Amino acid sequence: MTSELIAVDWGTSRFRAFLLDAGGKVLDRISAEDGMSTVPAGGFAAVLERNCGTWMKASPQAPVLMAGMVGARNGWAEAAYASCPASPKSLAGSMLKVTERVSIVPGVIARDESGADVMRGEETLIFGTEVRNGLVCLPGTHSKWAKVEDGAITDFATFMTGETYALFHQHSLLARLATEPEDLTGFDDGLEAAKDGTGLLNRLFQARSRVLAGNMAGEKVGPYLSGLLIGAEIEGAFKRYGSDHTVTLVADGVLAKRYVSALRSYGVGIEIISPERAFLDGLAAIAAAHNQDIAP
Amino acid sequence: MTSELIAVDWGTSRFRAFLLDAGGKVLDRISAEDGMSTVPAGGFAAVLERNCGTWMKASPQAPVLMAGMVGARNGWAEAAYASCPASPKSLAGSMLKVTERVSIVPGVIARDESGADVMRGEETLIFGTEVRNGLVCLPGTHSKWAKVEDGAITDFATFMTGETYALFHQHSLLARLATEPEDLTGFDDGLEAAKDGTGLLNRLFQARSRVLAGNMAGEKVGPYLSGLLIGAEIEGAFKRYGSDHTVTLVADGVLAKRYVSALRSYGVGIEIISPERAFLDGLAAIAAAHNQDIAP
Repeated sequence: MTSELIAVDWGTSRFRAFLLDAGGKVLDRISAEDGMSTVPAGGFAAVLERNCGTWMKASPQAPVLMAGMVGARNGWAEAAYASCPASPKSLAGSMLKVTERVSIVPGVIARDESGADVMRGEETLIFGTEVRNGLVCLPGTHSKWAKVEDGAITDFATFMTGETYALFHQHSLLARLATEPEDLTGFDDGLEAAKDGTGLLNRLFQARSRVLAGNMAGEKVGPYLSGLLIGAEIEGAFKRYGSDHTVTLVADGVLAKRYVSALRSYGVGIEIISPERAFLDGLAAIAAAHNQDIAP
Repeated sequence: MTSELIAVDWGTSRFRAFLLDAGGKVLDRISAEDGMSTVPAGGFAAVLERNCGTWMKASPQAPVLMAGMVGARNGWAEAAYASCPASPKSLAGSMLKVTERVSIVPGVIARDESGADVMRGEETLIFGTEVRNGLVCLPGTHSKWAKVEDGAITDFATFMTGETYALFHQHSLLARLATEPEDLTGFDDGLEAAKDGTGLLNRLFQARSRVLAGNMAGEKVGPYLSGLLIGAEIEGAFKRYGSDHTVTLVADGVLAKRYVSALRSYGVGIEIISPERAFLDGLAAIAAAHNQDIAP
């Protein structure tokens, strides 16, 4: 990086921005509730100005780079998905300029014979892991697993793990069975159940039948559900990509702990990086690639 | 059967009863909203009296046989689960008498090394199919697949297919993408997706990414979800039981059509019987076994 940079992580439900010096150090930061979904059409420039206007005035040379759902169809402007293989360099070359100094990093699309998969924002975090070859896992509402080769994303798949957990924990038959405080040993039971061939729809119901049969206490139901879904996600990812890779986990807190615990049961190598660190390093890598491109 | 019979199908959300003559012919029927979940503790006898009191007075010799959730812990009285293998004869021998003339058919439990599965009511329908050897599938909110050998249920598994469909169709991210009128060709796409190794959590998200990538119209999202979940259920059932059996489907209407369409893609033999027919024949078989048991 050759100048200061304003790095914006603008997702569906949150707006987060960082003022970085030329060395990538965080000078200032802001986090606001102005998620993309709360901004009316045509209102994006004003929200950016309100949150980052002071920085933009104080550092008039600093470009503003944004990643995330801000580049979706109903965001500031639609940044067309970049194809795999996707690298910091290829994304730097296809950024969408929405004002003289504000650009959006495009999302990435992976196509295969049966359909397609898409991401917006996660590509930046994946680059921030600096993985050259391996699997990167970003757990969450819609977990992403990416295969990285020679520093480029060559394929990825999304799993509705977090959303499915919330649906079942809040709205399903299991919601009434789950009691607290949770007994975390249920997590391992769920992981084990995920490896069974009868499949997820059956193993979800098992939470109920085990309780009715006296095989499982209500305290285990929530952790069982969590272990079952995380296990099913890992099973799917390893079926697609193989399990002979180091897995780099972009996560922190409880989620990181649960995925580490689950991945350990598969005996794979594990690296961990925090989402914020990955975002900052990823956006810096894209900015650096961009500066190289436009260097005289 | 040697006398009239009052056959009661008392589930969580509905009360249905039939007055049968000695030959099993339906003389009268009633259906009411008095599902087990709406009846206060101690109130079951009164609800039965209100719905069937006229029959019970007119046919004082007719026993009242009930099946379904009425035998659950929070039902009229808890009928302990019968173990597999379960036959009309073994269930007739372990019925729970709640009054001199009223008995509850117990549910069935299948235990394996990893847990247990339970049913209440479906066992009666399975006997009503008169399958001697094969697989019986009862699609619904909680679909059941039973393996029947020599006329006895030797194992079964429950799949949360219908409940999962409702959760995702009403509450998930996919709810906003699904448009009407539905394009039923999406069902086949979903079936195909269920056969993919990346798994259900990924293939659920595919409904979204295919729409975003322009590969699928919103009209296909609902049928895709239906095909995907039914396909995942069948995949799980066939992994557990093999696909070299005739499948007897206890279903009617749209659900029967969808399962027939899905099962055809696996090339298995299919028989269909309506749930009402299966219930009546099943309860008659249990009653007949009971009468043989108590015959002098």
